Amino acid sequence: MNSTASSNSPTSDEPTRVDNIVRRFFSDQSGSLLAEVPGAAVTLSIGADNKDDCAVYDLSGPVSLVFGSDYVRGPKFMLYEAGYLSNFDIGYYLVVANVSDIAAMGAIPIGLTTIIRYPKDLSDEQFEQILAGIHQAATDYGTLNVGGDIGGAERIILSASALGVCESGKALTRSGASVGDLLCVTGPVGTAGAAVAYFGNDTLCGKATPEVEKELLAAWKKPIARVAEGRVLVENGLATACQDVSDGLKATIEQLGSASGVGFIVDAEAVPFAASTEAVAGLSGVDPLGLAMSASVDFQLAFTINAASLERCRSAFTNKGLTLTVIGETTQELDVLLRRDGNVGPLPGVAWRHQEAAISTLVTDQLNRGGAKSEGSVGG
Amino acid sequence: MNSTASSNSPTSDEPTRVDNIVRRFFSDQSGSLLAEVPGAAVTLSIGADNKDDCAVYDLSGPVSLVFGSDYVRGPKFMLYEAGYLSNFDIGYYLVVANVSDIAAMGAIPIGLTTIIRYPKDLSDEQFEQILAGIHQAATDYGTLNVGGDIGGAERIILSASALGVCESGKALTRSGASVGDLLCVTGPVGTAGAAVAYFGNDTLCGKATPEVEKELLAAWKKPIARVAEGRVLVENGLATACQDVSDGLKATIEQLGSASGVGFIVDAEAVPFAASTEAVAGLSGVDPLGLAMSASVDFQLAFTINAASLERCRSAFTNKGLTLTVIGETTQELDVLLRRDGNVGPLPGVAWRHQEAAISTLVTDQLNRGGAKSEGSVGG
Repeated sequence: MNSTASSNSPTSDEPTRVDNIVRRFFSDQSGSLLAEVPGAAVTLSIGADNKDDCAVYDLSGPVSLVFGSDYVRGPKFMLYEAGYLSNFDIGYYLVVANVSDIAAMGAIPIGLTTIIRYPKDLSDEQFEQILAGIHQAATDYGTLNVGGDIGGAERIILSASALGVCESGKALTRSGASVGDLLCVTGPVGTAGAAVAYFGNDTLCGKATPEVEKELLAAWKKPIARVAEGRVLVENGLATACQDVSDGLKATIEQLGSASGVGFIVDAEAVPFAASTEAVAGLSGVDPLGLAMSASVDFQLAFTINAASLERCRSAFTNKGLTLTVIGETTQELDVLLRRDGNVGPLPGVAWRHQEAAISTLVTDQLNRGGAKSEGSVGG
Repeated sequence: MNSTASSNSPTSDEPTRVDNIVRRFFSDQSGSLLAEVPGAAVTLSIGADNKDDCAVYDLSGPVSLVFGSDYVRGPKFMLYEAGYLSNFDIGYYLVVANVSDIAAMGAIPIGLTTIIRYPKDLSDEQFEQILAGIHQAATDYGTLNVGGDIGGAERIILSASALGVCESGKALTRSGASVGDLLCVTGPVGTAGAAVAYFGNDTLCGKATPEVEKELLAAWKKPIARVAEGRVLVENGLATACQDVSDGLKATIEQLGSASGVGFIVDAEAVPFAASTEAVAGLSGVDPLGLAMSASVDFQLAFTINAASLERCRSAFTNKGLTLTVIGETTQELDVLLRRDGNVGPLPGVAWRHQEAAISTLVTDQLNRGGAKSEGSVGG
């Protein structure tokens, strides 16, 4: 009775609901005093109103506490349902997706709780493999799955919440970029989205080489949360703003710009993407850069630094065996633009969160049009 | 492909999986060092291996951090799907269920993240009502919904994670009860389970008075997490062990006994339950005490105190306008027993987590047998 629609109320899509409904309930949180015990006042330094990857608490101690939750789509987790990912893989992925939000704040993960609901026909062995994947990923990041909930559901439902700590007051946010800062990423973007575009499309799937297919799937099997990179940024006081690229690079840059009150100009030649992304773009006739910047759960970090810090930042990364690529800079004008072949224009790509639906549809549209480059969508 | 059963692997039920699979991945967590930053070492004081309501962290500061997650069943949330609970009610309930785990540790809630997934036909108005319920409950407990995830699913999926703080090292656990301690509860038990038994059974539903029906539903609409009671116990150093009664009183007592290495003897006349529970038991021909102690999401606290602390505990509760009832005591023998009419026997009730299925089945069985008292199940 309750789950049927009211006659007069619309059923808006997710971003509309976030803007029109959710945001209102999240307003004015940051700075709230939430608890007092002898010797301690607990404050929410960064609440949901800040639109960061996590909330941040000040607990009157030497660390800031970072807290976030990430639901891994059950029904839409296409690569799993199509058999490309194992039960182990989705367990592993659940942890990485949540640890990535901790990494984006420059924090060290200290634990997760996990929700694992499963259909009746999931065998003990399959269930154990999900837990084994969770356990392996937690171990790989030096953290623990400290509890949660298991039980039945109609489909696999995976969700988790993660905690992290960093030096008090040093958590990275999206809002600190200044005009003239350099924009950097920690590695290739777009591979996860390219994988969905490829394996989710019957016309494409099977046409790439085994090496390309392997590289595409690697973005989903044991992906890497950039905890080490986030820590280098915090420990050396380098980043002015930071977030993970889990919505794709275009969306990430737009969000950084909006939170910081700056614009960006991105150099087309500088954006790193994998050979497999180029291969999928070639097979589907779309602009490789557009595909690379579109919605894709990459878990790289995108961050800004003061231009004067660049060499120090490079050294700090190199010393830890980590990489960064400068891909652009902030601007006073609030637009997010691409500089390519001497021209400046809009950023290519599709900046929407549900990369499966968005990218698959785009590639399909492109294929239906006979592979010609489209202008406004994934074309540059 | 991955969600179909392996040919040779069984599909055990949830408690079997917890015992045989989950527990292994949760072993030896407590005491783990998880992060070090200048001036701070972060330790998991109480991990999932302790089987408490929450995990507890020591962050080298003045507070202990308490962390737990609770999934509110979508498909099985029968009272909602049957129209007895509104969208506001389930939002409110989600927060209380999670705050109750914080209360059980004697902590102050400092925030939640929430997962809200919903079917396509859930209107904006209905969606807003879920958020309004979450917001109202968070406000009622002086806390905030600091983030999470919204998006589509085939049915309503609600899950949350909650954080709390208490004085460093003072979180309440299940494992500290000693022989001779008194067993107490903060209020009537069994109402939530009785509501499911009543509204979930066509033979019963409609036969009780409006007052009884209202009292039954009140256990699900705006239930109360016992934060204030937990805080009195911590602030006065009163409880030797504590947990919430979200699995029903019988299960709770068994778990407290198992964790503390003691048995219990419970006085039948002392166990508080509501008139509505008695009414449902009467309509279905089962022992009221058996129904009251069966699986029921009550959110009361069950706790043990040193017998010498009783008067101090009563005063502390009375001073805050709170109630407690002594219902039994701990014993050296590990059994959990009931003393009734001068006889001692097994504790009545059904100690299983899925109260909808368990209690409904029992009541149905009872009705099918013509209302005669059964001996081993809900009968005393």
